[in-house]
Amino acid sequence: MSIEKRQRVVIEDVSPQIDGGRFPIKRAEGEEVLVEADIFTDGHDLLTCRLLYRREEDRNWSEAPLTPLVNDRWRGRFRVTGLGRYLYAVTGWVDHFATWQRDLKKRVAAGQDLSVELLIGAELVDKAARSAATAVDRRQLEAKAARLRSDSATMDERIDAALDDTLTALMASCRERPFPSVSSPFLEVVVDRERARFSTWYELFPRSCTSDPQRHGTFRDCEAHLPGIAAMGFDVIYLPPVHPIGVQYRKGKNNTNAALPGDVGSPWAIGGVEGGHKAIHPQLGTLEDFRRLVEKAAGYGLEVAMDLAYQCSPDHPYVKEHPEWFRRRPDGSVQYAENPPKKYQDIYPLHFETEAWRELWEELRSVVLFWIEQGIRIFRVDNPHTKPFRFWEWLIAGVRRDYPEVIFLAEAFTRPRVMHHLAKLGFTQSYTYFTWRNTKAELTEYFLELTRSQGREYLRPNLWPNTPDILTEYLQIGGRPAFMVRLVLAATLGGSYGIYGPAFELCENVPVRPGSEEYLDSEKYQIRCRDPEAPHSLRPLIARINCIRRENRALQRDWNLSFHPIDNDQLLCYSKRTDDLDEIILIVVNLDPHHRHSGWLELPMAEFGLEEGSPYQLHDLLSEARFLWSGPRNFVELDPRVIPAHIFRVRRKVRSERDFDYYL
Amino acid sequence: MSIEKRQRVVIEDVSPQIDGGRFPIKRAEGEEVLVEADIFTDGHDLLTCRLLYRREEDRNWSEAPLTPLVNDRWRGRFRVTGLGRYLYAVTGWVDHFATWQRDLKKRVAAGQDLSVELLIGAELVDKAARSAATAVDRRQLEAKAARLRSDSATMDERIDAALDDTLTALMASCRERPFPSVSSPFLEVVVDRERARFSTWYELFPRSCTSDPQRHGTFRDCEAHLPGIAAMGFDVIYLPPVHPIGVQYRKGKNNTNAALPGDVGSPWAIGGVEGGHKAIHPQLGTLEDFRRLVEKAAGYGLEVAMDLAYQCSPDHPYVKEHPEWFRRRPDGSVQYAENPPKKYQDIYPLHFETEAWRELWEELRSVVLFWIEQGIRIFRVDNPHTKPFRFWEWLIAGVRRDYPEVIFLAEAFTRPRVMHHLAKLGFTQSYTYFTWRNTKAELTEYFLELTRSQGREYLRPNLWPNTPDILTEYLQIGGRPAFMVRLVLAATLGGSYGIYGPAFELCENVPVRPGSEEYLDSEKYQIRCRDPEAPHSLRPLIARINCIRRENRALQRDWNLSFHPIDNDQLLCYSKRTDDLDEIILIVVNLDPHHRHSGWLELPMAEFGLEEGSPYQLHDLLSEARFLWSGPRNFVELDPRVIPAHIFRVRRKVRSERDFDYYL
Repeated sequence: MSIEKRQRVVIEDVSPQIDGGRFPIKRAEGEEVLVEADIFTDGHDLLTCRLLYRREEDRNWSEAPLTPLVNDRWRGRFRVTGLGRYLYAVTGWVDHFATWQRDLKKRVAAGQDLSVELLIGAELVDKAARSAATAVDRRQLEAKAARLRSDSATMDERIDAALDDTLTALMASCRERPFPSVSSPFLEVVVDRERARFSTWYELFPRSCTSDPQRHGTFRDCEAHLPGIAAMGFDVIYLPPVHPIGVQYRKGKNNTNAALPGDVGSPWAIGGVEGGHKAIHPQLGTLEDFRRLVEKAAGYGLEVAMDLAYQCSPDHPYVKEHPEWFRRRPDGSVQYAENPPKKYQDIYPLHFETEAWRELWEELRSVVLFWIEQGIRIFRVDNPHTKPFRFWEWLIAGVRRDYPEVIFLAEAFTRPRVMHHLAKLGFTQSYTYFTWRNTKAELTEYFLELTRSQGREYLRPNLWPNTPDILTEYLQIGGRPAFMVRLVLAATLGGSYGIYGPAFELCENVPVRPGSEEYLDSEKYQIRCRDPEAPHSLRPLIARINCIRRENRALQRDWNLSFHPIDNDQLLCYSKRTDDLDEIILIVVNLDPHHRHSGWLELPMAEFGLEEGSPYQLHDLLSEARFLWSGPRNFVELDPRVIPAHIFRVRRKVRSERDFDYYL
Repeated sequence: MSIEKRQRVVIEDVSPQIDGGRFPIKRAEGEEVLVEADIFTDGHDLLTCRLLYRREEDRNWSEAPLTPLVNDRWRGRFRVTGLGRYLYAVTGWVDHFATWQRDLKKRVAAGQDLSVELLIGAELVDKAARSAATAVDRRQLEAKAARLRSDSATMDERIDAALDDTLTALMASCRERPFPSVSSPFLEVVVDRERARFSTWYELFPRSCTSDPQRHGTFRDCEAHLPGIAAMGFDVIYLPPVHPIGVQYRKGKNNTNAALPGDVGSPWAIGGVEGGHKAIHPQLGTLEDFRRLVEKAAGYGLEVAMDLAYQCSPDHPYVKEHPEWFRRRPDGSVQYAENPPKKYQDIYPLHFETEAWRELWEELRSVVLFWIEQGIRIFRVDNPHTKPFRFWEWLIAGVRRDYPEVIFLAEAFTRPRVMHHLAKLGFTQSYTYFTWRNTKAELTEYFLELTRSQGREYLRPNLWPNTPDILTEYLQIGGRPAFMVRLVLAATLGGSYGIYGPAFELCENVPVRPGSEEYLDSEKYQIRCRDPEAPHSLRPLIARINCIRRENRALQRDWNLSFHPIDNDQLLCYSKRTDDLDEIILIVVNLDPHHRHSGWLELPMAEFGLEEGSPYQLHDLLSEARFLWSGPRNFVELDPRVIPAHIFRVRRKVRSERDFDYYL
């Protein structure tokens, strides 16, 4: 039995807390952590409690106040200001002096004799004086205790001394904390840079950066595309794998099994005689060219994200150099990827159950470190759910220990528990089911889940209307308006979104066959030349929307999303606002790409800081049109053939005669 | 890095689980534990998982199957059959053979060449053979492997061998579990005897067992009351403290500050010159008399519950023998109990922050052990929330290690978090807010909370319509019908309930003053003589209801409660049923003690196993009346002046012509 048995304060249900503290929560630099806990003690004594927090590597805790809510729940907050890891906990103890002061007031009110009570208080002050932090404090406390005991002072004077603010503050600041309880375990926050929360991605196949489909595009060609992409307002340019591509079992155009001469193959069939995951595909250029592209991109405010696809073509150097990293079939061949009865003979999965797993893990980490050395700080991870979870946890934690600015995006279009687990164990951002959520009910339900449930503490959505693997039926069917709808939704529902660029901006919507979500003539298997300046291109709209995102902080985060009623099931109405209500962005989207729709929406006047009787202005940041509204119910109409959405900035102040120069 | 890094199966969110496993769940002997967990692995491989459970002191785990629900959630169950503690956990591993069989079926369906695949399967079987538990298994497996490889068998025969049930079962039973994951921490179940879940309490002041208020009742007098209490169907008789009562500052009748000569004082002012918590109040008899009472009670099926009130009168021997266990005021006096400005000078609280806390804790435990030696196995703990939580956790765990049959009932009418925490840390049963929940909305909400939320895993309600401290306004105002209503509610909503007996059965409803919940002439401060055979006594009704509880298992538990719609806010309709639907008890209560009410209720036909077209019989176990109903909607009417409730047994089978002897 140790001294701690006398702890009387109980601290329970500290939140946020993921799986009993097994996993950290996530924040971006400068964000707040709002902490709550149930804190109580036995009997009627008052307790004092504090929120504790520190950077993991620091020795001393910082403290923040906790204030009571209802039912013994307390709340406090702290701000994370640096990359890396923070810890937080809650401490509490029975506060004998505060209890004594509270009771003294009651005794005064009841007119009781207080002579003994004041002596009890004096004892408490004396005790604090003995453990005071400074000599000044000690002397002040001793003087106060003497005053409480004073024979020469009147009873009223002694009571005033007992309750005065100086003494209260002195006692609160002293370290007299009998048998303090501390919540366990310490909880963790992973702090990322701001781009983890607010990022705008553009996916581009560099080999298609050519005006002649017979000529393989290069990194140098790619440089010419940077100004246009930057002008659209993107800040991340994500490249599919840039490594040598295998020739054995190479896929032909439209995923045919037999590649023809000249077929360029899938960039995800990584590895050839020219090298593996640390090499550059010769047809794209050299490592030098790649570094130059990364630098040029940076000059335009674009950060290059690399694909991390841990799998090998049959020609990958690992296959010969490390046969122990692959499973072997009884006939001596290497086990190719399968999803029976489908066979992917151009891909060899890595065998993570190998006895040589340590060497395999180390090698895979060295791939990440190699590209970090080339200036890469963002990795989009291909199918992480087909590799062991423990591997990812180890890899990401290890890399981020030295490079806390590195961002990992999990491309795991899989079951919800698996997606959540990957996010818990370290992925910075996650692809989501947004890609397939089209109706008002689907979008509302899913985004309330993403932004209100506990998962938001660790899973940061990155919303993609399309990818090279996914041309949704909505986009196939809905034409150009459908692309506009999905663009507005992605860009305004989420702090982070991305498009598989050229195909998206040019509204490519032809599947390889009916019922498939694969693109016809998919860039995964061939070079595609396109005219970025085509008249139907969405470039101007994309540029406008990304500009709106940059100019309005409210759109740079996820949790501030609210949905609002609108009496038409094809219209979706939602808003994002800053805490200070300085920015209120109201979005209305017509989800039906085929028909004009109108409806009456209803705004939460009080939450928006709007007054019932006063008109207010709605400024459409897309069309620059302005509307005067009043009251909560207002009318909107959206024609998808013109533009299927409003992105309003709500401007509370409308001029009246009182603003007119001659009014007074 | 250890071998466990290759674990591929993730086990999350195992339930039930209290505060990350910090506290055990509770069950009574013979009950089931339904366990669920999220279990998944990377990639497309199949996993196998098992529920593990064992008695804490056993070395080996037992296993139970887990079956998949949706979204990677699995469920299994085990039964606890002995008192004490059980542990449970979940284990899972990638099942290569099951995966291989699944894939083989797909390959067969696709008509693929299987020669290499069968060799892969044979390797898996060979590997299992090498680690087979018995030589018989090993030989069988080797034979199977040979069959898969057989050149002489046809391909179809080899495929049949690969998929046959014997091989599947053999492989499932072998211990081949690559890199198994096990959930952590192991979770605990405290297993109590059945009375923890199903108990019927009667509170009695033994000193009132007298026909002359001038003559102090004794344990011998008390014996005469046992047959009547047993006849009412109670199984626990709870006695307020039976220890010597202090004389200093003794309270007079109706809680007056100055006791008059002859005033008997409050039994909770424990301790006098005759002794303290291990002594018997001389006016009640001797320790020998007490033991005899306990034995006599047992003869009637009644178990005596003792009050455990850890506080002292100024005359308690501890005060002199252990001054260090009390707080001392600067004037040298001992600190009495207070809730400023109220003073309770007849009570000295124990000072749990004392330096001598170890000795204090040990002494308090010895009190429990002393009464256990006298045959006591149930303690009703007075105001546990005014003593430190860690003390209770230590006390209860320690006592139950040697006496797992001991039951502790927490009398903590305090804030919800505190009540829950006491239940978590070990109290077997808890007083609840039922005492003050009167309306349909209040009762429905509160009992859904008690029986559906996670708290049910550790907090077992014990429902009391009244106590010596609480005469509710509902009882004060509603007359005899109010007592009947509260009796039926307590006895049918909860597996455990109790009444402060004589006052309840005689419908005593006069408060000491308007607005107070204290009884006039409270037995806490004086002897009360009553006529248990008074004509208005509820004894017959109590006996009938407790008989119904004994005869119907469905009423002996809490979680099987369902509420049903009824179109009158004064009528409450609910049911309890056994899992096999053998017993369905339907209760309708008129909550308004003043007026007759009627309404249409709606039953869940399918859940009750009732057919829409067939009539069914409602047998009122209170009145013995029978009704034929059909369909979900039926009419009821209840007059509180007759009886304010139905307790129906739903009898599904109604005779028809087909049951008539000559029908065939």
